[in-house]
Amino acid sequence: MNAALAHSQTAPDTRPREVPEAMLDALRARFGDRLSTALAVREQHGRDESVFVVAPPAAVVFAESTQAVADAVVIASRFAVPVIAFGAGSSVEGHLLAVQGGISIDLGRMNRVLAINADDLTVTVQPGVTRKQLNDEIKSTGLFFPIDPGADATLGGMSATRASGTNAVRYGTMRENVLALQVVTASGEVIRTGTRARKSAAGYDLTRLFVGSEGTLGVITEVTLRIYPLPEAVSAATCSFPSIEAAVRTTIQTIQLGVPIARVELIDANTVRMVNAHSQLGLREEPMLLMEFHGSPASVQEQAHTVQEIAAEHGGKAFAWATTPEERTRLWTARHNAYFAAIQSRPGCRVIATDTCVPISRMADCLLDSLAEVEASGIPYFLLGHVGDGNFHFGYLIDPDDPRERAVSEALNHQLVTRALAVGGTCTGEHGVGLHKMGFLMDEAGAGAVEMMRTLKRALDPKNIMNPGKIFTV
Amino acid sequence: MNAALAHSQTAPDTRPREVPEAMLDALRARFGDRLSTALAVREQHGRDESVFVVAPPAAVVFAESTQAVADAVVIASRFAVPVIAFGAGSSVEGHLLAVQGGISIDLGRMNRVLAINADDLTVTVQPGVTRKQLNDEIKSTGLFFPIDPGADATLGGMSATRASGTNAVRYGTMRENVLALQVVTASGEVIRTGTRARKSAAGYDLTRLFVGSEGTLGVITEVTLRIYPLPEAVSAATCSFPSIEAAVRTTIQTIQLGVPIARVELIDANTVRMVNAHSQLGLREEPMLLMEFHGSPASVQEQAHTVQEIAAEHGGKAFAWATTPEERTRLWTARHNAYFAAIQSRPGCRVIATDTCVPISRMADCLLDSLAEVEASGIPYFLLGHVGDGNFHFGYLIDPDDPRERAVSEALNHQLVTRALAVGGTCTGEHGVGLHKMGFLMDEAGAGAVEMMRTLKRALDPKNIMNPGKIFTV
Repeated sequence: MNAALAHSQTAPDTRPREVPEAMLDALRARFGDRLSTALAVREQHGRDESVFVVAPPAAVVFAESTQAVADAVVIASRFAVPVIAFGAGSSVEGHLLAVQGGISIDLGRMNRVLAINADDLTVTVQPGVTRKQLNDEIKSTGLFFPIDPGADATLGGMSATRASGTNAVRYGTMRENVLALQVVTASGEVIRTGTRARKSAAGYDLTRLFVGSEGTLGVITEVTLRIYPLPEAVSAATCSFPSIEAAVRTTIQTIQLGVPIARVELIDANTVRMVNAHSQLGLREEPMLLMEFHGSPASVQEQAHTVQEIAAEHGGKAFAWATTPEERTRLWTARHNAYFAAIQSRPGCRVIATDTCVPISRMADCLLDSLAEVEASGIPYFLLGHVGDGNFHFGYLIDPDDPRERAVSEALNHQLVTRALAVGGTCTGEHGVGLHKMGFLMDEAGAGAVEMMRTLKRALDPKNIMNPGKIFTV
Repeated sequence: MNAALAHSQTAPDTRPREVPEAMLDALRARFGDRLSTALAVREQHGRDESVFVVAPPAAVVFAESTQAVADAVVIASRFAVPVIAFGAGSSVEGHLLAVQGGISIDLGRMNRVLAINADDLTVTVQPGVTRKQLNDEIKSTGLFFPIDPGADATLGGMSATRASGTNAVRYGTMRENVLALQVVTASGEVIRTGTRARKSAAGYDLTRLFVGSEGTLGVITEVTLRIYPLPEAVSAATCSFPSIEAAVRTTIQTIQLGVPIARVELIDANTVRMVNAHSQLGLREEPMLLMEFHGSPASVQEQAHTVQEIAAEHGGKAFAWATTPEERTRLWTARHNAYFAAIQSRPGCRVIATDTCVPISRMADCLLDSLAEVEASGIPYFLLGHVGDGNFHFGYLIDPDDPRERAVSEALNHQLVTRALAVGGTCTGEHGVGLHKMGFLMDEAGAGAVEMMRTLKRALDPKNIMNPGKIFTV
């Protein structure tokens, strides 16, 4: 399966489909000034954080209700024209590019928290609500939503890409935390995929079919999520290590022991330097774990004690504690901004980010081999990892005008994915496939499984209008 | 949506399809004495724990490998004849009945644990491995698999019905714990749905499409599961309450506070009596919670202390501790056998089991109203609940020869489901739809969502041969 990665250079399908004037007229009649064909607006909606060249849609609809989304999809379906759902624009694999033309539906105005069911630990939101907005709005209830990708992404977008982040090791990913969705299908019908019950065995798991479908099966118009009591005690610490290997092995043992650590993030020395420069922090510029412990005061203390012992065995320095909420916020904000810190370290660069996730026992080998390769290549990079999940990101900071740097970085990624697949891992832990990993998906899942995905797509979207040309070509 | 439950009396599709002699010849040629057409064997494979009349398949194939399953499916596909995968026969909603004829593929001989990746906390098994067998085989590694439906079901069957059990409140259900599957599709192709990585964003979530699909999309031939370190400390206790309401409210507060309790099971006084009689236990014959706490010794003590305080506020008696592993095993075995204890309390009876799961804040109302109704009906019953999840089961113990008792019980179930759907719950938390809840599924999910399920089914199984007539009619 993974020997040749034969398909990974498959070119994305980029034949744009015509958007007829009659369709724009129909949209204009329905949406008035909530339709835009201005170039600046279209260009803003035809790109994301990836290295791909902007591919603007023909028009952007600013939807303000589920009905508006349904109406836009019905019009697009009538003309067999692509529809791309747009949240915050923070995806990283080319998900939002209108590579086959069509329209973008901007869901940013659908940003209301519809229901906070604090007693049930659930919340229902419109798709344009961002993760930070949600946490601000539920703060007074003593509850929080843990999934935190680097960007302040929308919950619709996070559902569509099966996002996760630093808390996934304890709280799971969007896969585990979306209870139900409201979806506009490719024919413009509105369905619900589940209930607010914590578990269910009622028929096919439509919720999880849409979570991670990257807009290719329908548009998510409501999201019901699990939320969690804010832990009684939270304590965060950093720990520096003599080597990346020592940090990774500390993580592996922590997980294998079953310590319910809430966050355990790896940052290499090179990336710590970037973070220090960007966020005015004075972190030791050595390989480092950023950790957080949640629980009762006694349990937090106990967890920290156990991890300190493991770290000490691997030459870890004493924990540096971030004790106040402000210090903690500062630390985690710096971590979340690491991506942007890295970009600023090389003005004008773009990032090719890797996203492999491997069984935890294989993480050290996988990561260290790829580290040696990037060091040898001379390409500037950052290295961050949600290492408690076996998921880590190299970001290759390339000059977008230098084809050699891009080719070298893609080759590094290719070697890393090959290595990850060989040990039973995945090419993408949390970013999704988009345009960039279609070949890797074929190598990972195999032709039969990808053909099954295509069959599902053709059945639910026979005109191939929902974000076509992403994940696979139909 | 839920007002009329208009569809809940939809009759199952029971037109059997002919199994031609040529097909039996082809199966005989391939499988020799691993094919049986003996009536006793066929009858044993055409029933489960439900009240439905036995519907035997025309033949049973005892598969010993994935290739054998694929070969049987290819033959069935050639003749467009139904295929029903059979594990332990412990489903409760008519899943295994050959209502449209066809053949049963018995997977009981595919019972090898294929790989124990202790360092990664994963295991890969054949579908006929049972949950108890798995735990016996991994015992020496210090790891365990937590999902425990009442019966000693197979892991293939548990995947197919999205099963859960008493530990789900802490460890999740099969939805959260299946990492990947190997599946034989309706055309006889073998695919893998995922990797051993703990999380992935690589394309559609085929794993979760098959988990809970009740054999209607393909046959599961391998299961890769998450396993967990045995907790350092485990402590189990029972607590009696003056009323069911008090027990339920104790549970709700425990969950709302975020106590990481591992098990919290409700048993009513009537069911405690049955359990005492069956398992020679001396439990107080009052409404009761059975609880278990997992963690470090200090954390277990702390959790128990918190729950004891909550219980005391609701009039709960002092905890009775099951301190030794033997006492704990005895307690949980008695809990798992409650179903059988109940059956024995009324010789010759059959069970109609309810399986609603509701948002936790609505559980007390929902459960108490239904309790009043069953008390008023005079039908003997048991009441058990995985109340930490909002999931509870009434079991109506009916005389199978008395149509009145069956009708009254179905009406009670109907009222309960109506109530559960009205508060955002589901008709089935863990048993699945099978034959019995097809109407409820329509009421719960709505015509649009069920039509989407049908579309998926038609796309993946165009000849409608995989366990046809279950979940919905095509």
